[in-house]
Amino acid sequence: MEQVELEDEFAEQHQLLEAGNIAELVEQLSEMPTVEVAEFILSLDDDQALFIFNAFTPENKGYVFGSLPIDRQLEMLHQFAPRETARLFSNISSDDRADLFQSMEHDDQERLLPFLSKSVRDNVIQLSSYPEDTAGGSMSSEFASVTTDMTVDQALDQVRKDAPKKETIYYIYVVDQDRQLKGFISLKDLILAQPHEVIETIYHEEIVSVHVDDDQETVAETISKYDLIAVPVVNKENQLVGIVTHDDAIDIIREEDTEDLQKMGGMEALDEPYMNLSIWEMIKKRAGWLMILLLGGSLTASALNYYQAEITAAVVLTLFIPLIIASGGNSGSQASTLVIRALALNEISIADWWRIVKREFFTGIMLGLILGVIGFVRVYLWALTETSGDTQWVLIGLTVAISLVGVVLWGSLAGSVLPLLLKKAGLDPAVSSAPFISTLVDVTGLIIYFTIAILLLKGILL
Amino acid sequence: MEQVELEDEFAEQHQLLEAGNIAELVEQLSEMPTVEVAEFILSLDDDQALFIFNAFTPENKGYVFGSLPIDRQLEMLHQFAPRETARLFSNISSDDRADLFQSMEHDDQERLLPFLSKSVRDNVIQLSSYPEDTAGGSMSSEFASVTTDMTVDQALDQVRKDAPKKETIYYIYVVDQDRQLKGFISLKDLILAQPHEVIETIYHEEIVSVHVDDDQETVAETISKYDLIAVPVVNKENQLVGIVTHDDAIDIIREEDTEDLQKMGGMEALDEPYMNLSIWEMIKKRAGWLMILLLGGSLTASALNYYQAEITAAVVLTLFIPLIIASGGNSGSQASTLVIRALALNEISIADWWRIVKREFFTGIMLGLILGVIGFVRVYLWALTETSGDTQWVLIGLTVAISLVGVVLWGSLAGSVLPLLLKKAGLDPAVSSAPFISTLVDVTGLIIYFTIAILLLKGILL
Repeated sequence: MEQVELEDEFAEQHQLLEAGNIAELVEQLSEMPTVEVAEFILSLDDDQALFIFNAFTPENKGYVFGSLPIDRQLEMLHQFAPRETARLFSNISSDDRADLFQSMEHDDQERLLPFLSKSVRDNVIQLSSYPEDTAGGSMSSEFASVTTDMTVDQALDQVRKDAPKKETIYYIYVVDQDRQLKGFISLKDLILAQPHEVIETIYHEEIVSVHVDDDQETVAETISKYDLIAVPVVNKENQLVGIVTHDDAIDIIREEDTEDLQKMGGMEALDEPYMNLSIWEMIKKRAGWLMILLLGGSLTASALNYYQAEITAAVVLTLFIPLIIASGGNSGSQASTLVIRALALNEISIADWWRIVKREFFTGIMLGLILGVIGFVRVYLWALTETSGDTQWVLIGLTVAISLVGVVLWGSLAGSVLPLLLKKAGLDPAVSSAPFISTLVDVTGLIIYFTIAILLLKGILL
Repeated sequence: MEQVELEDEFAEQHQLLEAGNIAELVEQLSEMPTVEVAEFILSLDDDQALFIFNAFTPENKGYVFGSLPIDRQLEMLHQFAPRETARLFSNISSDDRADLFQSMEHDDQERLLPFLSKSVRDNVIQLSSYPEDTAGGSMSSEFASVTTDMTVDQALDQVRKDAPKKETIYYIYVVDQDRQLKGFISLKDLILAQPHEVIETIYHEEIVSVHVDDDQETVAETISKYDLIAVPVVNKENQLVGIVTHDDAIDIIREEDTEDLQKMGGMEALDEPYMNLSIWEMIKKRAGWLMILLLGGSLTASALNYYQAEITAAVVLTLFIPLIIASGGNSGSQASTLVIRALALNEISIADWWRIVKREFFTGIMLGLILGVIGFVRVYLWALTETSGDTQWVLIGLTVAISLVGVVLWGSLAGSVLPLLLKKAGLDPAVSSAPFISTLVDVTGLIIYFTIAILLLKGILL
């Protein structure tokens, strides 16, 4: 991805600001995409940002404010009186507004509510009552709807009237008198139809919708699967209460992928951009798993303690410990990454477990043999430099090689089965992170290694 | 995510098929979303699938075929004569058609081309000439366009006429006589405008576009940043040559995230679904990095060989080797995951390197201290079970604790800086996978551990 160099991108606008040519600057900004105006605002210091922001029309204020990151929104609100905030609130889209309201301190919420118009207040309270990661928490209430008894002409008139306030008018939802969702008609259908036709006869009854309590991941999946511009959200009574649009689906998918990735890296999901988190919050998100992994990993000390007689008899065995257990961890990391991602993309399901185990069994054996050969050669190279004479290098080489086959196979199997087990248990498969699998394989890898060493070297080195 | 149980979902349709009630089945299918019809087709065996498919109208054949996975498309093509394939080709959307054409064997391509109409043939050849992962390789040529001299009424008439063949008519692109992209007008603008107004006076001149050679990641970023339904693609002469739509952006983001994730798991990106890859291809994608990591990891054997005198003098030191190096690897995995993802999301850039290093320095120190305390306690617990008397456990505990601080700090720093260096060098930061960082930290972790051991234990145990 390309770097965005904010300084250069807005050189012209910054110059106008310095020259005090505010009228020209505001004129220029009004012709830029909202998201770029928001980026420009972010490139200014607080006072400048507020000054420019106040020069916008109320409508543009709403658009630009809604495009700012939520922490910046909260900062700016502190510089506004409740009456100003209320005016701003009536111009922000309903989903952004609900997200902002949910992020405000309880006291600030209480101070603001009396200043809001009844319709905005009801809307804010209703939308922010849904948990953030559900369909209800992501939806906007600015959808276009018509009833079945309208003609195409009447419907187009209503859409024209409503258009400026709606998130999208490309899908128009068809509801009955009780606001139950009956189907939809696209704007394309409307402009292709004859003006006098009745909606009843031309609307699509087959409609994909999500429930207000559905997980946001399900919502994004639905939008993506059916290539929708927006998906309607219904309540328990099948009444249309909102829509989630395609751009929200992208944000949700990004967010869910980031969460999975961070869990797979061996920590809790940050839930915020890396730079926004304080050092202490960062430590909290990371320390938990590191401690669990250290405690799990300390079983390696117990295992090695158990084999202390063998180690003392043949210190040479210790040389290859890190190399062997790391190979198990690496193959486990590969297998778990593949299976977790394939589960997330619905490419595989728990029902496929036996096919997955077979795949990983053969793959593990083959990868183990490849690494085993390299491990054997590595021992031979070590023996060449060894000046102490008879090193029994063939037997040590065989021990290392066979152990590599064993731990790589075991890593592949553990790495692929564990995510499936976690999912089966209703837990998040992404928790079976590379570090987690490595720790598991470290302990068992040692046992495999020393068991093979004892079998091959008993009476010779041991 | 929910499991999709295909068997249950299509129970009714399967019954109709078994009962031989094909007319009713085709009628039902024609009312289902295309993607569900495709899923139904996938749930059938080859002969059944072909039988049902042949009962569709030519137009529906195109839609359903375009929704099948590409490997299934290729399989089905083998059952068609070139003339049938050509008829199908004229009903598939241009982007799906180009993808399919690119995946066909050269011989099959040659056999098909003479049967295509000139317009389809030219279009297929042009679109499939772009590399798959560029804007050109993802775009569709079915966009709606108007010229500046048209009236709103004329433009709406043209859109109505073109609509059935277009990927989206919600953005209509404005071009001059030379097909240069001048701007756009939305269908919403058109239905809100007066019929006699001229496009020239109402279209938006500020338009976001991508270049035909741009990476597909840039395309998805652009669609996501500006919340677009589609982004226009222009060639070197700024002529409009295609559009990429919002649903493609989701697919691209998914694909790029999957690639990153697989690289971060310590392997090459599969570029195909897990189950589609043959075992041998799978081994090829995984063996390379495992071998590199094994060779890198074999430096641990060299390091341990170097410290063999110390190990022989104090075998107890070996007990804590896996635990210490694993902790370094785990903290490195956390740091690299965070930095790679934040880079991919443009939350940070290389220019932030000093702030990142400071963050990871403090985080690493704190995490190291936490683990150090646990490590010290772990050594104490070991000493309690030790029957050999004077174990010097305090000094060993301090060695382990200080080493943990060192390796965790080192892991955090290496894990965060390496992705930045890779990006600086123009390489993919995702290559600094958890296994790669672990291997790096393993070797250096051993050096840290033994250096501290020699400093603290010289003349006592060593």
